[in-house]
Amino acid sequence: MNPTQLLTEQLIACHSVTPVDGGCQDLMIERLEAIGFVIERLHSNGVDNFWARRGTEGPILCFAGHTDVVPTGPLTDWHTDPFVPTIRDGHLFGRGAADMKASLAGFVTAIEKFVAECPNHKGSIALLITSDEEGVATDGTVKIVDMLEARGERIDYCIVGEPTSSKVCGDTIKNGRRGSMSGQLIVKGVQGHIAYPHLAKNPIHLIAPALAELATTEWDKGNDYFPPTSWQSSNIKGGTGATNVIPGTVELLFNFRFSTEQTVAGLQKRVHDILDKHELTYDLEWSISGQPFFTAPGELSEALTAAIVAETQITPELSTTGGTSDGRFIARICKQVVEFGPINATIHKINECVAVEDIPKLSNIYHGTLQRLLGA
Amino acid sequence: MNPTQLLTEQLIACHSVTPVDGGCQDLMIERLEAIGFVIERLHSNGVDNFWARRGTEGPILCFAGHTDVVPTGPLTDWHTDPFVPTIRDGHLFGRGAADMKASLAGFVTAIEKFVAECPNHKGSIALLITSDEEGVATDGTVKIVDMLEARGERIDYCIVGEPTSSKVCGDTIKNGRRGSMSGQLIVKGVQGHIAYPHLAKNPIHLIAPALAELATTEWDKGNDYFPPTSWQSSNIKGGTGATNVIPGTVELLFNFRFSTEQTVAGLQKRVHDILDKHELTYDLEWSISGQPFFTAPGELSEALTAAIVAETQITPELSTTGGTSDGRFIARICKQVVEFGPINATIHKINECVAVEDIPKLSNIYHGTLQRLLGA
Repeated sequence: MNPTQLLTEQLIACHSVTPVDGGCQDLMIERLEAIGFVIERLHSNGVDNFWARRGTEGPILCFAGHTDVVPTGPLTDWHTDPFVPTIRDGHLFGRGAADMKASLAGFVTAIEKFVAECPNHKGSIALLITSDEEGVATDGTVKIVDMLEARGERIDYCIVGEPTSSKVCGDTIKNGRRGSMSGQLIVKGVQGHIAYPHLAKNPIHLIAPALAELATTEWDKGNDYFPPTSWQSSNIKGGTGATNVIPGTVELLFNFRFSTEQTVAGLQKRVHDILDKHELTYDLEWSISGQPFFTAPGELSEALTAAIVAETQITPELSTTGGTSDGRFIARICKQVVEFGPINATIHKINECVAVEDIPKLSNIYHGTLQRLLGA
Repeated sequence: MNPTQLLTEQLIACHSVTPVDGGCQDLMIERLEAIGFVIERLHSNGVDNFWARRGTEGPILCFAGHTDVVPTGPLTDWHTDPFVPTIRDGHLFGRGAADMKASLAGFVTAIEKFVAECPNHKGSIALLITSDEEGVATDGTVKIVDMLEARGERIDYCIVGEPTSSKVCGDTIKNGRRGSMSGQLIVKGVQGHIAYPHLAKNPIHLIAPALAELATTEWDKGNDYFPPTSWQSSNIKGGTGATNVIPGTVELLFNFRFSTEQTVAGLQKRVHDILDKHELTYDLEWSISGQPFFTAPGELSEALTAAIVAETQITPELSTTGGTSDGRFIARICKQVVEFGPINATIHKINECVAVEDIPKLSNIYHGTLQRLLGA
C-alpha cells in the first residue's frame, strides 16, 4: 500500500472528534522525531497541540493542520463505521478522510522523502498541529502562534492542509480567507395584547424595514481575490409562543463575511447607521470570529502552483472563498499563508471520503513545494 | 351581606379553572328551578353547559355567561388564595371575581327579584351558561346555539355578562366585537452554509420587505363603532440554532382583528397579493377564531343604557374594542347582542378583584333592563 494512504488510514482509525486528538499526534511525532525534528508539545485546556521544527536557519516552511474531526452525525446513516477506514469505489471512507487526515499523512510522507533525499536542506521545515480547529478554536493554533510570537519567531511560508480542491485535486489554492463577524441584535418593543395594539409596540414590525435594508445593502463589490462582502441572517426569534400576545423583543443573529476591503469598525458603523435611521431601540453585541487575511501571489503560491502543475497538469486557481480557517491566526506571524488539500465535497458530511488516487498526489505536491523552496 | 355578593363569593369558592365548572352551574340551577325556570343541561366532551328558560312566549331576553375561569398563575404571587373569596380595601378578591362570577350572581339575583315582583312578566327570560369560554370554546356556547338553531329557536335580546367597564362600573357597553383571524405563514428559501450565500436563499431576508409592507398597510380606517382593522405578528421563528447556517424556512404567526367593514375572503386576498407581489414561495394556513358581530343601537342597548344611568348616573359608551367573546356565536341567532359587566382592569391577572360596591349595582342594572324590556 502507498505509505501516505497507510498513514491516512492509521489516522482515520484514531477517534479524534474535536477537541480530542485520539493518538494522531503521537503517530506523527514518532515519525518526525525519527528524522530529526525537535518537538514542542503544548497542552491548553485539554487540547493537544505540537510545534515541530527541523533546522535552525530561515526560511521556515511550515505545514499546518488539525487532527480533530467534526462529529459523525447519525452512525446509521454511514455505509461503514466512520472510524474504520474502508475502500469502496476508489475512495477511502472515514470521518476526517478529507478534512484533513489525508493532508496530515501527506505532510509526513512528503517530509520523510524530502529529508531522505536532502538531509541538509536549506532553512527549516516546521509543523504546526492542533486538535482544536473544528470546535471553538481557542486552545489550538492561536496558542502556538502566541508562543512563537512571544519568542519573536516568525514563519516565512505556511501551507495549511485544508481541503481546498473543488472539482479535481489541485484545482484550487486558497490565498486568503474572508473575515467573519457576527452580531446578536435585540430590537425592543413593548409587549401587549394583540387586541390592543395601540398599547404595544410590535418589535417584529419595527425590525422589518431595517432588516429589508440590511439584506439588500451592497457592502462592496469585492475585488480580484475576494467575493463581495456578504451579510446574512442565521436566526430570528420573537414571540411568547402565545398567539394573542405582541412580544416585547425580537432577536436576530447575523454574520458578515468580509474581505480586506472592509474594517470591523467600518462595517459596525454602517449597521448601526441603518438601525438608527429606522429609529430602533436595540441592543447589539458583536463578536469577531476571524479577521480576513490575504497572501498576494509570491514565492510560496508560485512554488505550490508549480508543484501542483507538475503532479496533476492542472493550474490551480487562487481563491479566498469559503469559511474561516486557522490561516487567520498564522497570518499574524507569517506573510505568506496559503491553503491546499484534497476535494472538499464530502467534508463535514455523512460518508466523508477522499479519492484513493489523490492521496499520493497530495504527498507529491507537498514534496514538490519543499524541493522548490528548501531544496539544496 | 348583600345577596349578590354572597352568591359571587359562593361561585368564587368553586374551583372552576377552564373547562371545569366546579359546581357553579348547580348553584345557579337550584335557584333558577326554584323560580320556575325549565333547565336543559348540555354536556359536550366533558364541558358543562345549560340553557334555562322561564316563559314560553317571545320576546326572549337572555343572559349569557361562563362559569369557567382562567388559570391562577403562580399562587405565591396572590395575596390570598384565589379560590377563597376575600374582602380587602373595599374589593372582593378571587379568580373569576370580575370575569365573570359577579355578573353571574347579578343575573340570578336580578331575575329572582324581577320574578318576585312580576311573576307574569312579558315574554321569556333565559340563561345561556357555559364552562368553556376561557379555553378553546368549542364545546360551550356554540353547542347551545347549535341546539337552539336546530330547533328553529331564536333569541330577541342577549346580554353577555363580560366585564366591559373600563374606569368605573357602567362606563362601557360592548355592542359588537371585532373578528379575529390568524395565519401561519411559512416562507421558503434554500438552506445553506452562511459562507456560501450564493448557493442558498435566505428566507429571513426574503420575508423582510413583505413583512414591512404588511405591517404598514392601512386595511381600513374603522368606522363609528369599530377601530381600524389591525394586523399584528405574534411570533416569528427562523433558524437552525447554528450561527453558520442560512435556514430553509421562516415562520410567522399573525392575527387580524377586523370589523364588519371587512370580509374574511377580502383580507385573505390582500395578504396573498402582498406575498405574491414580493415573489415569495410560501405556505399559509388560515384559521378564523371569530367572525365580527355588531348590534346597532336599538331597544336592548337603550334599555340597558337607561338602567345603567338610573343606577350609576353614568351614560355608557357603546364600544367594540377588545378581544373576542361568546357574543360572536350568539349573534348567529340573535340580532341584538350586547355585553355588560364590571371593571375589567384585573381580569386574567394575579389578584383579580371586583369592587364590593359594584356587585349590587350589576344586579340592579340587569334588573332594570328586565323591567324595561319584560316588565308588565
